[in-house]
This record gives sequence, structure tokens and C-alpha cells, in this order.
Amino acid sequence: MIPYTAPIRDMQFVLKELGLLDQVMQLPGCEETTPDLVDAILEEAGKFASEQLAPLNRSGDLEGVSVENGVVRLPQGFSEAYKAFVDGGWNAVPFEAEHGGQELPWTLATAVSEMWQSSNMAWALCPLLTQGAVEALQAHGSDEQKALYLPKMVSGEWTGTMNLTEPQAGSDLSLVRTKAVRDGDRYRISGTKIFITFGEHDMTDNIVHLVLARLPDAPEGVRGISLFIVPKYLPKDDGTPGARNDLRCVSTEHKLGIMGSPTCVMSFGDNDGAIGFLVGEENRGLEYMFTMMNNARLAVGLQGLAIAERAYQQASAFAKDRKQGRAGDKKLAPIVDHADVRRMLMTMRSSVEAMRGLVLETMLTLDQQKRHPDDSWRKWAERRVGFLTPVIKGWFTDLGVELSSMGVQVHGGMGFIEETGAAQHLRDSRILPIYEGTNGIQAMDLVGRKVLRDEGKAAWEFIEELNVLITALNPIEGDDMARIRKRFALAVDAVEDATEWLLEIGPENPDAASGSAAYYLRAVGITAGGAIMARSARIAIEKLEADPNRPDAAFLKAKIATARFYADNILPQVSSLYRSMKHGWETLRDIPDDIL
Amino acid sequence: MIPYTAPIRDMQFVLKELGLLDQVMQLPGCEETTPDLVDAILEEAGKFASEQLAPLNRSGDLEGVSVENGVVRLPQGFSEAYKAFVDGGWNAVPFEAEHGGQELPWTLATAVSEMWQSSNMAWALCPLLTQGAVEALQAHGSDEQKALYLPKMVSGEWTGTMNLTEPQAGSDLSLVRTKAVRDGDRYRISGTKIFITFGEHDMTDNIVHLVLARLPDAPEGVRGISLFIVPKYLPKDDGTPGARNDLRCVSTEHKLGIMGSPTCVMSFGDNDGAIGFLVGEENRGLEYMFTMMNNARLAVGLQGLAIAERAYQQASAFAKDRKQGRAGDKKLAPIVDHADVRRMLMTMRSSVEAMRGLVLETMLTLDQQKRHPDDSWRKWAERRVGFLTPVIKGWFTDLGVELSSMGVQVHGGMGFIEETGAAQHLRDSRILPIYEGTNGIQAMDLVGRKVLRDEGKAAWEFIEELNVLITALNPIEGDDMARIRKRFALAVDAVEDATEWLLEIGPENPDAASGSAAYYLRAVGITAGGAIMARSARIAIEKLEADPNRPDAAFLKAKIATARFYADNILPQVSSLYRSMKHGWETLRDIPDDIL
Repeated sequence: MIPYTAPIRDMQFVLKELGLLDQVMQLPGCEETTPDLVDAILEEAGKFASEQLAPLNRSGDLEGVSVENGVVRLPQGFSEAYKAFVDGGWNAVPFEAEHGGQELPWTLATAVSEMWQSSNMAWALCPLLTQGAVEALQAHGSDEQKALYLPKMVSGEWTGTMNLTEPQAGSDLSLVRTKAVRDGDRYRISGTKIFITFGEHDMTDNIVHLVLARLPDAPEGVRGISLFIVPKYLPKDDGTPGARNDLRCVSTEHKLGIMGSPTCVMSFGDNDGAIGFLVGEENRGLEYMFTMMNNARLAVGLQGLAIAERAYQQASAFAKDRKQGRAGDKKLAPIVDHADVRRMLMTMRSSVEAMRGLVLETMLTLDQQKRHPDDSWRKWAERRVGFLTPVIKGWFTDLGVELSSMGVQVHGGMGFIEETGAAQHLRDSRILPIYEGTNGIQAMDLVGRKVLRDEGKAAWEFIEELNVLITALNPIEGDDMARIRKRFALAVDAVEDATEWLLEIGPENPDAASGSAAYYLRAVGITAGGAIMARSARIAIEKLEADPNRPDAAFLKAKIATARFYADNILPQVSSLYRSMKHGWETLRDIPDDIL
Repeated sequence: MIPYTAPIRDMQFVLKELGLLDQVMQLPGCEETTPDLVDAILEEAGKFASEQLAPLNRSGDLEGVSVENGVVRLPQGFSEAYKAFVDGGWNAVPFEAEHGGQELPWTLATAVSEMWQSSNMAWALCPLLTQGAVEALQAHGSDEQKALYLPKMVSGEWTGTMNLTEPQAGSDLSLVRTKAVRDGDRYRISGTKIFITFGEHDMTDNIVHLVLARLPDAPEGVRGISLFIVPKYLPKDDGTPGARNDLRCVSTEHKLGIMGSPTCVMSFGDNDGAIGFLVGEENRGLEYMFTMMNNARLAVGLQGLAIAERAYQQASAFAKDRKQGRAGDKKLAPIVDHADVRRMLMTMRSSVEAMRGLVLETMLTLDQQKRHPDDSWRKWAERRVGFLTPVIKGWFTDLGVELSSMGVQVHGGMGFIEETGAAQHLRDSRILPIYEGTNGIQAMDLVGRKVLRDEGKAAWEFIEELNVLITALNPIEGDDMARIRKRFALAVDAVEDATEWLLEIGPENPDAASGSAAYYLRAVGITAGGAIMARSARIAIEKLEADPNRPDAAFLKAKIATARFYADNILPQVSSLYRSMKHGWETLRDIPDDIL
């Protein structure tokens, strides 16, 4: 077993020292999220992740899942861990109190979720999907539907799924063909869905499928898709599972990673049609899915951070343990002594810290969007979250793959051997840039919807934030802060120029916008991460100035060094990304398809 | 089966239009490597790769290898393909005529090898390892040893292996513990070796292991290691296999990729000690291995190109076939129409072309090193090959992973499903930055041995070449060439500055050199690739100017567009890499190990 230790101190630093918790506690309903409560929750969650979930990560990968006659067999221990998870109340953490949720702020719930995803990503996909389904029903379900389904889904007694993709309808959901036919006040659903995560399992006595389907008289395209609740067992009036619905898991996919998570081909309506219940109004399904999808995108971004953290922990442990000689020195030394190994570890470490700060800070904005008493504040928060969502999904998941790959590299030959466990993180991570909207789609969303459509309002607000931060960094000439500030300001300049360029060229030239979107997303991500690192260093410097002999002095010095590493090693990418943006797209159409 | 088509036209462009073949034909012994011969060989090799090797790539991955009582079972068809390969004379292509080789120039042999590696990397590792063993024996074996072993290894009747790594001795071979004890004119070898590629199989009736071991009275460290021939069956006087030697395959590794290639744990001397024959002199084994390793590093670099080419072919085919709707347009269109998908494909395509040109051009220099009549030319060639070898190994194999990962991304959800085959390329590619010297070691080799040790001689010669090229590009204001030249010149400037900086700081500060080495390697690689692309564009422009209606006009226009894409999208990275170099290393030691 490869151990996992929740990075509680680092999480506390972001939540407390970066001031997030202070702001959370000012929000209505969050007054009781005190530092003590937060500490206790992080501690308990960390224990659960290390003791219950992490031990099943490698065995789950090895065993995988199988399906026979529609029954999916999960890896050993998954069911027991899930039961303990539900019994511990963990599933209910972020949800509305009305349906039995703990309604803790997303800022805190996200720190906790990172632990589930780090310790066992395949397993943790199950609650992640349920979360999406709960959010969709919270937002769009009828009161009756909420009363019937939500308490059980919030507690985790029942799990939820998202049935979107079909073989011909991947990124383009307008092509959905699954049929829904009115049958009294219900609907009969028939069709095949693919890539359905935890579409079938025996951990709970019911599964609530949310299914996109098309009515016979629906308009073509995305405005003709409706959303249905299609439970595995039809709930009886008393809420307990009743008759088996007409749906089944046909097979599970043979995948590159997340082997412990069943990715199902689902068949609906092989016989009389699966019974489905309309959510909201007909033909508005895609719109409903999108409200849910935004949060799911943040959750997938978080997975990118989580897998990178896990890969970092493992690589760091290996590098400190593995001894080889040093050039010109006969003594054995751990390979962490080699500058290039250290460079890789610091790249992982600093990127992970930048991501963690950025996602938790974005979740604070999300909490403000949901709870802030001031309407204009909520509107601003919505724009900010909207702008950062594709950045978090795209940049974090790209980094998840790159840093897991770096983790393999730190291990040398052992990294390629599956027993080591480093390769699993790379395999697991590879789905992240793909699902919940490919990163190409995230980049288009950022540039098209979040920058061009509102004429740069959200982007300029964010850039203004960065400029305010630059002013507030208070460097002293020649100190670490001056250095960090210099590189950060250069990156912000480049993002500013890039945004201006996009707003100028984008409306005229769609290829310029979409062909450069991936570069822009990465540039914004790196720079937003740089803001977190600069703030972290600022705070650490202040605390150390006030008392250089604090008991946490070494920890704070490490924060400064990590921020400086990020500034010197990572931030320089931003200006080259901007240069690639400006002309890179111009050649995209110059090669005919038959030569490409 | 996922088809593979050898990129013959692109290879011809490099060999002929870039003028490589003209230079090859001027070398003694290469006069007959005419364009017609080259065409015929490429054609035949392409057929063999597509028809015999490519069909076994996916099945070999699925079946993998197994070992029982020391007998390794290879995937179905591997043996037959190997026999056909040997019968076709393909194994003998690059080797000395004296031992039955065809002694074709490496420039051509490398183009052919790319096809083996693209079509089936796991399988092609077998001849790759034999090649290393042949080179080691050609260079350091006694006449008797050469006569006994080389004819059979050159033809491929016997295969060869390299036994270097032990559990405690990975990158650091000074820690080798395998024992060699004198026994008359032979030696008795005992010890365990790991990661031995094709260490056991039944494709041939003998396997010639080259083994590093230590004599009881040997000095400590790298100067106490000797190299031995340890054949699986001891050859009788007539050269046929005789008694079984005391060595066996204990197990094979469970790996991330190259599943069809047995990676063996080898045990030598379980009984009386395996009989070994000393190569060259005692205690000079590592030195001998290094002469071989340089070529092996070029061969592994080539694997990076090969896997990227394969991933590109597959991604391009998928993108042209997979249809989804376009935003605001109800018509279905292949996803290659999306700018971001095209950006990914062009990144793959342009990088592959840059790598192919660079490796073939380096192999031309290698041919000159081996054959040029002028001694000072041979010395220059040796420096040039020495400088570019770690660049090709490091940069190509990093790209192999990155571009295979991009290939998965182009496939969307299907990329994560193993049946598609895209994920296999990523898994296979991941070993390349690790074996034959990790890329961290390549970077150290580049900076330490190839730049600092000769005070930048080789580096400045190469930079001078680049500057001469800049002058020769003859742009016309506003044309594609002007644009390519501008970006290329900026990259060359940055490499120049970086080299100057390294030479200044390196001797005083080892951490600065080794902590920035990876950035330097990548910067040199991208820029060297940029030189190839600029030359390609120059030649294509000239040919089109002479006759715009040439039958290959579309092909030549694509060369120009690809070069411009590379200039606009890839070359800008170089200046940011230089910026990361200058200060990035300074923070490496600022975090104590217990916090890292």
C-alpha cells in the first residue's frame, strides 16, 4: 500500500493565513465555521482518507471491475468504505440542510473533497457524481421530487449518475438520440448511453440516473433535449425502492485508468421502456445540465490538483529514500540531493500549492455567490466563478497529467513498474482533461463565453484584482518579495495584453480566438496561481518579520521559497504563451485535410 | 488493428530535398546509396512495418509476456515476424560488412529504424538491443569473439542484451555488485540483473548477454567494472550453440507499457557460476559500455519520434473521421475542423517533422564521424554528435510522452478506452525518458560533459551553424520566410545567451548548471528543430518559386505552413526557458528535506 497523508497544514494555511475562513464566516449561515471546527473536520477527513480510502487505491486498480448479467462487481472493500463514508456523514457535507445536508461552505467542503480524490480517485468518483445529481435536483427538481430523492442522495444512501454521452454524441450533446415518450404523467425512456460512471454497482439499494433524452416532437438540436430522473428501482410511496426499472448495464469499458470505477454502457428500455420522470420543463434539459456542469467542472479541476498532490507525496518519499552515488563523490546519498530531481519535486510542489490556493479561493467566491447578502456582490461573484471555472478545469487537469508524469520520472525505472504505484496516478489522471468537457472545450468556454461574450468584463475585473495585488505586495528592494513581484507583474502584463488582443481580434476572427484559446487558458491559470503564491509569500514574510523565531518558521520559510521557485521557474511561461497566441493560429487552415 | 503507413515522402524530403543524401554519397563506401536505392529500401521497409509489425502492436500489448520455469512466452506472431525480419536481411542493415552487415549509412538505417519503432515499439526493442550489443563487440571484442558472435548477431540469428542495472544500481552503475571470478581464461559470473529487455525469449536459438560485473580485486566505483559476454548457450567450436549456461530469467516485470517486450529479472550463477568471456581489458567495462550507450541514446531518441509519429497518424485519422456538430451550425463536421483540434494535430505534426530532420541530419554527421577521409572533419563530427546526442535522447523522448498524450486528447473519451489504441502509445512512450539514462542525466551530460568540459567548443560550433543558417535564409520582407527567420533568430539569441550564462556560472556553481540543465536541453532541442524547419521552408519556397505548378506543390506548401506553425507556436518557448534557467535554480536548496 502506498500511504497518503492529507496536507492539512497546507490547507490550513490557505484557509486561515490567506484569510479565506474570515471571509467565509462573514457569510450568512457560515458563522459557525470556526477555525476549531475546520481543524476538527480536516483532521477527521484526513484520517478517513488515509485509513479507509488510500489502502484501496492500488488494490482497486489491480482488481478492476467486472460485469456479469448486468451485475457490476466492484473491487474488494469499496462497498465497506462507502458505507463507512455515508455513516460518517461525509456525503452530506456540502448540501442544503433542508434535505439533510450539513450545508458547510464549499470552501471547506472542497478541501475535504481533495482528500477523497487524492486518496482514491476511482472510488471518489461515486460521491462526485452523486454530488452533480444532487445539485441538478436541488436547482431544478419539483418539490415532490426533492422530497422523494434528495434526502437519500444527500446522505448517500442512494447514489446518482449523469447519463449524457451516446456513441455519436460526445462533446456535441445536440446529437442525443435517446428517446422519451409521454406515458401519462411519466415518460418511457429508451436508448443507449455510454461512459456512465458508477452507472451500476451494488453499494446502495438504489441508483438515481439523470438522463438526457429527446421527445418525439422536440425541436432538433440542443433545444430539444429534456432531463429525466430514471431510478434503478422505482421508489414506492413510502420512499423505499420498489419495482425494477427497465434499464441495465450492458458492459463496462476497458480503460487506461480509474480501473476501480465502473464506466458503464447503459441500456434503457430494452423491454417496455424505462420509466422516467421529467425534471423541470420539457426541452430544457441541457440548460439544467449546464448549471450542474459548472460545479462538476470545478470538481474535476480539483481532481487534477488531488492526483498531483498524491503523485508529489509519492515522488518526494521515493526521492528521499532512494540512494545512489553522486558524481565525484563515493558516498551514497538520496536522489533528492540531485538538483534536477529537486527541480522536478519543486515544480510539483509549487504547482500543487498554486492550484490549491486558487481552487479554495474560487470556492470562497462560490460561497459568496450563493450566500452573500448583497446582490451586486453575488453578481460579481458569479462572473468571477464563471471566468475561473474553465481555467480550473483546464489548467488543473493538464497539470494533473503533466505532474503525475513527472512523478513517474522521479522514480526512474521503478516508475514504469506498476507495483510502485506512480504509473497508476498517470493512468488515472489522463481522463481528467477529457471528461466533463474536454480542455479544448474549456478553452473555448473561457474565450468565447467568459471573455468575448461579456466584452471582457469578468476578465478585466480579474486582471484589476491582480493589479491591486501587485500594488499591495510591498516589496523591499532586493528581497524575495521584490523578485516574486517582478515576475508576477510581467505575467500580469502579458495576460492583460493577451486579453486586449483577444477582445480586438476575437469578434472578427473566430479562428484566432479558438486557435489561441488553449494558450490563453494556460496563461491565465499560471498567472492566477502566481497571485496565490505571491500572497502566500507576502503573508509568510510578514509573520516572520513579526517574530522570526515562531515555531512554524521553517514552514513559513518554505512557503516563501516555494513562491519564489514558482515565480522564477513557472511564471516565465506566460509571456511565451502570449507570443504563441498572437500568430500561432494563422497557419491552422493552411494545410489541406488530405495532407494533415 | 490500427494501421500504420510509413511516412516515406517526408523521409525522402529530409534525405533528398534537405541534401542529406548528396552528402552521404560523398563518403567513402556510401557511393552506391543512390536515391533509387534509398527509395527502394524505404518502400520495402515501409511494407514490412505496415504488414508484418503493425498488426502485432495492439495484440502484443493485450497478450503481454509470461514466464514459467525460466521460459518466456512472447505474444503470438512475434517469433514469426522476427524470423521474417532476419530473413529479409533487415537486422544487418547498419553493421560492418566484415561480419555480414550491409554497412548502409546510419542516415538511411535510421529512417528505416523509425518504421520498426513506429509500427511496433515493444517488438522492435529486440533488434534495438541486439544493435547495442553488436556495436559494443564491433568496437571492443577480440578478433576471435567477433568471428564467433558477430556474424550471428549481425544477421539476427542470435539476439543480444545489455545487463547493466541491479536493484541498488540504477543510474549509478558504480554500485554494480554482480561478481566475476577468474576461472582459467574464462570467468564465473554470479548476481542478479534487473530491467533486462528481451533477456529471455525463444525467437532464436541463442542469446548473447553482455554483462557488467566486478572482479574480487577490482577497485571500487566505476573503474572496477568489467564487461563480459555471457551467452545463454556456450557456442561450440563450430559456432553452433552448445551447453546451457548457468543463467535464467527469474521473472518479468508488470509494466505500464511495452507489454510485448519481456523486461526480465536475470539470475546469473545460481549453480556454479555462469561462464563469461571478458571483453577487452578488466575494469574498463563502463568505458566500453559508454561507446555503445551513445548510439543507444540516439536510438531511444528515435523511439520518441517514432511513437509521436504513430500517435499523430492515429489522431489525425480519428479527427478526420469523427463527426460532431459545430457551434451555431447544425451540420455535422469532422472534429478536425475545430481550431483547437487542428492546433493539437499541427503541434504533433510540426514537432515530428522537426525531430525527424534533426535525427537524420545528426546521423549524417555520425556517418561523417565514421567515414569522412579528413581527420579534423571526423573530430568536428564527433563533437557535433556528442553535443546533439543528449538533446535527441532528452527532447525527443519528452516529446514522445507529451505528443502521445496529446494524441489521446484528440480522441476525447475514446482516447481513454484501450481498444482505441491511442492510450497504448502513451503507455509505451513513458519508458523513453527513463531508460538509457534518464532525461535528467541527459541534461547533466549536455551541460556538464558537452558544454562545460570543452569550454563550450561544441556548443559554439553548433550556434555558429545556426547563425550561418539565419544569414542564408534570404527572406523577402513580409513573406513566410521573414516571419520564420524572425522567430528562429530570437530563439538562437536565447540559446546563445543561455550558453554564455552557463559557461560563466557553471564552473563556479554546480547547482546552477545542473538545476537549469533540463531547461537548457529543451531550449537547444526546440531551436535545433527550428533550424530544420527553417531549412525545409527555404527549400520548399525555392522549389515553388521555380515552378509554382509542380505536381508536389501541395506537399511543399504544407512544408512551409508546418514550418511557420512551428515558428509561431513552438519557438517562443525558448526565451521563456532561458528566463527560467537564469534564476530558477536558486531556490532548489531552500526547502529542507523534511518539509519537501
